[in-house]
Amino acid sequence: MNEHVFGVILAGGSGTRFWPLSRERFPKQLLRIIGEGTLLQQTFERLIQDISPKQMTIVTNDIQAETIRLQLNEWKDDLVDNIILEPEGRNTAPAIALTALQLMHRDPDAVMVVVPADHVVKATKKFIKAVRFATKLATHGHLVTFGIHPSRPETGYGYIQPNKRKKVGSQGPFTGYSVTRFVEKPDLSTAQRYCRSGNYFWNSGIFVWKASSILEELAVQNPTMSKKIKSLAKYVGTSEFPAQLRKTYAKMSSLSIDHAVMEHSSRSVVVPVDFGWSDVGSWGSLEEVATLDKDGNVRNGNIIDMGSQNSVLFADRRVVATIGLDNMVVVDTPDATLVCRKDRAQDVKAIVSLLKEQKAPEHLEHRTVQRPWGAYTVLEEGHAYKVKRIEVVPGKRLSLQLHHQRSEHWVVITGTARVTRGEEVYDLQAGMSTGIPQETPHRLENPGQNLLEIIEIQNGPYLGEDDIVRLKDDFGRLQPVQ
Amino acid sequence: MNEHVFGVILAGGSGTRFWPLSRERFPKQLLRIIGEGTLLQQTFERLIQDISPKQMTIVTNDIQAETIRLQLNEWKDDLVDNIILEPEGRNTAPAIALTALQLMHRDPDAVMVVVPADHVVKATKKFIKAVRFATKLATHGHLVTFGIHPSRPETGYGYIQPNKRKKVGSQGPFTGYSVTRFVEKPDLSTAQRYCRSGNYFWNSGIFVWKASSILEELAVQNPTMSKKIKSLAKYVGTSEFPAQLRKTYAKMSSLSIDHAVMEHSSRSVVVPVDFGWSDVGSWGSLEEVATLDKDGNVRNGNIIDMGSQNSVLFADRRVVATIGLDNMVVVDTPDATLVCRKDRAQDVKAIVSLLKEQKAPEHLEHRTVQRPWGAYTVLEEGHAYKVKRIEVVPGKRLSLQLHHQRSEHWVVITGTARVTRGEEVYDLQAGMSTGIPQETPHRLENPGQNLLEIIEIQNGPYLGEDDIVRLKDDFGRLQPVQ
Repeated sequence: MNEHVFGVILAGGSGTRFWPLSRERFPKQLLRIIGEGTLLQQTFERLIQDISPKQMTIVTNDIQAETIRLQLNEWKDDLVDNIILEPEGRNTAPAIALTALQLMHRDPDAVMVVVPADHVVKATKKFIKAVRFATKLATHGHLVTFGIHPSRPETGYGYIQPNKRKKVGSQGPFTGYSVTRFVEKPDLSTAQRYCRSGNYFWNSGIFVWKASSILEELAVQNPTMSKKIKSLAKYVGTSEFPAQLRKTYAKMSSLSIDHAVMEHSSRSVVVPVDFGWSDVGSWGSLEEVATLDKDGNVRNGNIIDMGSQNSVLFADRRVVATIGLDNMVVVDTPDATLVCRKDRAQDVKAIVSLLKEQKAPEHLEHRTVQRPWGAYTVLEEGHAYKVKRIEVVPGKRLSLQLHHQRSEHWVVITGTARVTRGEEVYDLQAGMSTGIPQETPHRLENPGQNLLEIIEIQNGPYLGEDDIVRLKDDFGRLQPVQ
Repeated sequence: MNEHVFGVILAGGSGTRFWPLSRERFPKQLLRIIGEGTLLQQTFERLIQDISPKQMTIVTNDIQAETIRLQLNEWKDDLVDNIILEPEGRNTAPAIALTALQLMHRDPDAVMVVVPADHVVKATKKFIKAVRFATKLATHGHLVTFGIHPSRPETGYGYIQPNKRKKVGSQGPFTGYSVTRFVEKPDLSTAQRYCRSGNYFWNSGIFVWKASSILEELAVQNPTMSKKIKSLAKYVGTSEFPAQLRKTYAKMSSLSIDHAVMEHSSRSVVVPVDFGWSDVGSWGSLEEVATLDKDGNVRNGNIIDMGSQNSVLFADRRVVATIGLDNMVVVDTPDATLVCRKDRAQDVKAIVSLLKEQKAPEHLEHRTVQRPWGAYTVLEEGHAYKVKRIEVVPGKRLSLQLHHQRSEHWVVITGTARVTRGEEVYDLQAGMSTGIPQETPHRLENPGQNLLEIIEIQNGPYLGEDDIVRLKDDFGRLQPVQ
């Protein structure tokens, strides 16, 4: 391991193309759609093959941070200070510059391996070797990106043309070339020409460079953004940092690192690689990386099928019966179902936009919502009532809170609940219940060794998550939830 | 109105071809799949255009009777003695013969108009006129069936060939012909020949005859069945009838009235008609009778579609997004979803068989189950707990009961609950709750004017519906439920 190498996982994206499995607040990287673990977990585990977990940084936002901490709970001690929260999404350039700034603070010679959280890489060993080679180039000041041999004339990707006469280094199967040019999302005939030429590569969005190099080059290519980021330097590690960051981000333009730096820089280098990369950009692309059954289907969950082929069939616990489908996508979740021709899987984005316009909750989050103390699932909502199943992990507790507009009843179904109600504190076991009148401060805690599950029935004229007045909280959440 | 005419609705069928909307315990006739009201309600309302509601009889079974009474609640006083419960399904011949026997008891000159509960007839006026004409033929002793001009070479139907030289009567657009022969489910080339010939009609399964005629002819064609039915004559109207009926049915063979009588009888007459008949035999056939949108889709419920055509899209409250479908069937229900090519809609039966083999509850009943006092919906089941929403209609109460293996908690969400728990009786309003320990006799009643809804949480090692020990019941159900 090279002690100067740091892993940077970009995990801020919001998900629309894998709806209904992904939601605005629960994007693709947090999903278990292929292989063991979520894409985020797979990405993390791939990088720590060669980078110390203590040298890993995750860039994300408030909404996803709780779930990310849960998914990477095994490394929670390593990550305690290594999750960077962006106040709002500004594409990759500000996220990368901000991380570079912070890493410079830890190690002026830091080399960053920047990886999106939601890509698939099937050949981990080849990936590690490619990263090691790129690291060498990076130490010489190059800004390295990996280029993927295009397998089809995809119009949704960026393409990179290397300058074959300008090799900047070579080792074993790897060669680094200066970049002739970047082309963003070409039209179909151009993409076809690129594929035939053999001299264009897909831009993988994975980068290796020194933190100092990328900041230097940002200063040259985009002085405005560079100045804003640098203005934060003096606050790094201080309590003022979050407030300053929020202020700075409010004025930051949204720009990809490709547009901000790579496309214009003479330091850009591409290393063609072959490590089984896919960005799994839509339901239709899943078949490229998933395991197929004998009829060419990707199957998951409670599917009963008769004679379907070449289809993506994703169910959960509900029964989904499919008969005679060909080149279709069927995705079922507890509150929404998608049935789509595979060649129109890109239109899922438009469905999500429609739902958003209609203010339908199904675009935003799942019926099950992660919280730092566990999760809750809405079982049913009706006029003036809501029924939830609440899971509290051992040792955790919800905030001490009260509601102005609702009473609650809790029935324990498994584990031990420690209930604070006004001045009283008492424990309940499975089959026991309690009522919480409105305006009464209350708290739910799991003092046991096992999962606590309760059913909560809310009664009242208004049942929104924002009628929670937090009086005390273990997770620093004293604002109303949103 | 002819005072000797009685309507007989056959409503005993169990549903597989409209799964997941139909279930074994909730078949097609109870569904609202086309037009206003369920198919049963539409059938009932069609017949009472010309038959007094007091002269209507419904033949069904224990399981469906509760829902049928609810659906026909408007006529509950007329129907109080007019619902015949078959102990088990034995196809149409025993059901019809049994009804004929009972009607003979009321009126020796009774004419029966026998109609399946789950067919569509679009032209009610034409239907009524056809029935009046058939009634005339019936009073002369003919066994009349209606023949439908075949619109396609359907291989799933029976066909009837009239003897054009033997007219038994004629009036306006109607003519009755003696039948040359019945052909059950021909092969495709035969069906095509029938369609071309213009001299074959689909057997509609709607019959008009005197009760005495059908019993006489059954005695000739099937003396064994006839004897069994006649053996019940002396019990009609006595308290022994149900037990005797159960005994007799246990030994009864299962036979359609076509096979048992019509195919062999010289008294069979066919009247060709054109009253917009369909048996709506599968999801694929729905488009023949339903209203289509401009792209040829049948749409229902919470569907968000982009560019689908010629498809049947049936959702409930959950969001179903469909993109680019062509000739597909998508049916979503709270616990199961079907996605099927329209030309394979007949294979839904095979899916239901698979679910039955796996003992999956989704073939048997819905998450919402009707009861004589209202309904319950299972919101969630897990290890050692179950959550239900229970609706009790005004003035009704559940049985006084106890459970050996579970405790229950009730939280009122709307209305007033009168709770009996051991020796106590008390009322709860919305937002109030109570707990029922195991082994404690208890009862839930709605003493108010509005619907009562509660959430029930069950805790215990066994939560089956058969752990209900009924101590008192308003609906004569002192056996365990099943």
